[in-house]
Amino acid sequence: MTEILNRQYYLASRPKGEPNSENIPSRDVPLAALNAGEVRMRNLFISLDPAIRGWMSDEPNYIEPIALGDAVRASVIGRVVESNSENFAVGDVAMTMGGWEAYTTLPAEALNKLDESMGIPLSNFLGVLGPTGLTAYFGLMEIGQPKAGETVLVSAAAGAVGSVVGQIAKMQGCRVVGMAGTDEKCAWLTEDLGFDAAINYKTCGDFSKAIGEVCRDGVDVYFDNVGGEILDAALSCMNKFGRVAVCGWISSYNAEELPHLKNLWQLVAESITIRGFVVLDFLDRFPEGVGQLVEWLVAGKLQFKEEIVDGLDNVLPVFMKLFDGSNQGKLVLRLPED
Amino acid sequence: MTEILNRQYYLASRPKGEPNSENIPSRDVPLAALNAGEVRMRNLFISLDPAIRGWMSDEPNYIEPIALGDAVRASVIGRVVESNSENFAVGDVAMTMGGWEAYTTLPAEALNKLDESMGIPLSNFLGVLGPTGLTAYFGLMEIGQPKAGETVLVSAAAGAVGSVVGQIAKMQGCRVVGMAGTDEKCAWLTEDLGFDAAINYKTCGDFSKAIGEVCRDGVDVYFDNVGGEILDAALSCMNKFGRVAVCGWISSYNAEELPHLKNLWQLVAESITIRGFVVLDFLDRFPEGVGQLVEWLVAGKLQFKEEIVDGLDNVLPVFMKLFDGSNQGKLVLRLPED
Repeated sequence: MTEILNRQYYLASRPKGEPNSENIPSRDVPLAALNAGEVRMRNLFISLDPAIRGWMSDEPNYIEPIALGDAVRASVIGRVVESNSENFAVGDVAMTMGGWEAYTTLPAEALNKLDESMGIPLSNFLGVLGPTGLTAYFGLMEIGQPKAGETVLVSAAAGAVGSVVGQIAKMQGCRVVGMAGTDEKCAWLTEDLGFDAAINYKTCGDFSKAIGEVCRDGVDVYFDNVGGEILDAALSCMNKFGRVAVCGWISSYNAEELPHLKNLWQLVAESITIRGFVVLDFLDRFPEGVGQLVEWLVAGKLQFKEEIVDGLDNVLPVFMKLFDGSNQGKLVLRLPED
Repeated sequence: MTEILNRQYYLASRPKGEPNSENIPSRDVPLAALNAGEVRMRNLFISLDPAIRGWMSDEPNYIEPIALGDAVRASVIGRVVESNSENFAVGDVAMTMGGWEAYTTLPAEALNKLDESMGIPLSNFLGVLGPTGLTAYFGLMEIGQPKAGETVLVSAAAGAVGSVVGQIAKMQGCRVVGMAGTDEKCAWLTEDLGFDAAINYKTCGDFSKAIGEVCRDGVDVYFDNVGGEILDAALSCMNKFGRVAVCGWISSYNAEELPHLKNLWQLVAESITIRGFVVLDFLDRFPEGVGQLVEWLVAGKLQFKEEIVDGLDNVLPVFMKLFDGSNQGKLVLRLPED
């Protein structure tokens, strides 16, 4: 019997700024025999999310940093190839927190079985029906608390989270303005997703002025995916009792210095609430959220984009697309099934 | 009949940094005849509050800036000396938003009559039973939402707002830590007001370390009166789902540059809520708040300090005590009655 090797991309050293192949090299590790209760999956999809960059640092975070020497942590969907649990049969498909690796082996309790018979493409469970869709849903509805007629501003609006935020906000009767980094993305927001306006932040010039011109009645809810200068500009445009939902700061994950927020003073002047969150804060309400998202998806009310790139060995350059704005929608790495 | 002159301190120019007597000179203005419905008070007490510094600037704020040429705006308590309203008789005492002036003349609707027969010193209505007490009450209870056993940190804790915040937090069963600028203030907090610990921020060295040493279980609620470096340090010590109530940033009112917050990243890492507010946000609930504060005061559960300084002509140097930390408790200017 040939020894099967598990290719892994692991954290050799903590990156300063952008992670490179010295920080994240690959290795081939022989698969160990399964322990009692364990299940082994051959991974089909690996979710690439900005939060992973945060886990590479050893600063306090909402979950433990990735330990040096461990495979980089990521949500994965795989097909069971070997099982020591009566709850999983070879051929089942499941989702779990795995790694940048070909095979993920875990106790059965850590795996969530997915029902292929629903006919929903499996990768959707990593995005619009998974962490990113739930991030959009809970962040907007619980923290943003949008009311009909209010103006909702979304940064990284063409991304996996932002695009869902905007569509849900439209369903609540809000005026929705998105910020994105190319004219194509902006056109997608207004022409396909029904956003009322879009701002190309790479060409608009002064952010405060650009937001102020499009949001004539001010901003009531700002869904912040980026932090930094755009957050600062949004603060300058917020209405009294405005709400800012901060779900991750892509622009800062790779910055060794956080930018200075000149307009934080607005917090007091306009009685603004800024609340940070991660989707795990709403763990006990995931069934409610997934149920609502599936309902909207099946009703055709929720459009989304996935960018699926093939090949485990492309993981690092593909991951970096999240930080230069070159991805469109939820970024997923696909691994061959054989 | 002698013409009566109204001495006023007015805004001649907008201060950069600390206001001086060129920004705020005095003048003596003859009193005009009363219009229909107007009431004239001889002022007895003028409330000196940090927020007044904000109104001197023409940046967007929660209420209009003071117009150039107008008397500096302030809460005042006065005795009616002339009335064109059937609702006010000469000799009545009332509170209103007036100015740094000997006489305040306003339509009767703008005046709130005070009941001297309650036997409560009139100046209390400018502090513990007025804006500062209500700021403490609503900011802590509504934004901080303290739960028994949690740790509440208060900056400017010996001030008019902070000292009340700490006492209310103790009544909620919290562990309470105050930050103040002298050992005497710190001793007052722990020995007289029942705070569990106090930090002298002028001698403690590194703020994050000092807070971390006293708040071993982290900080659940931070009532922020100062912003800047202390806010930054508090952020580094906040527990998951911590709440920060921001009621005014004394340290920044006179700063032309806001300090850089390095730990704002904690917002996402720990799912923290930061909410700015002014007491007027809770205007429709003032009766509830005053009722609760009077109950605690009468029951002897609420200690407070007033610093009463005599003489309208001292107003500017007395006002500046708010910014160098030399006042203890609510700062009130008293004017002679005859």
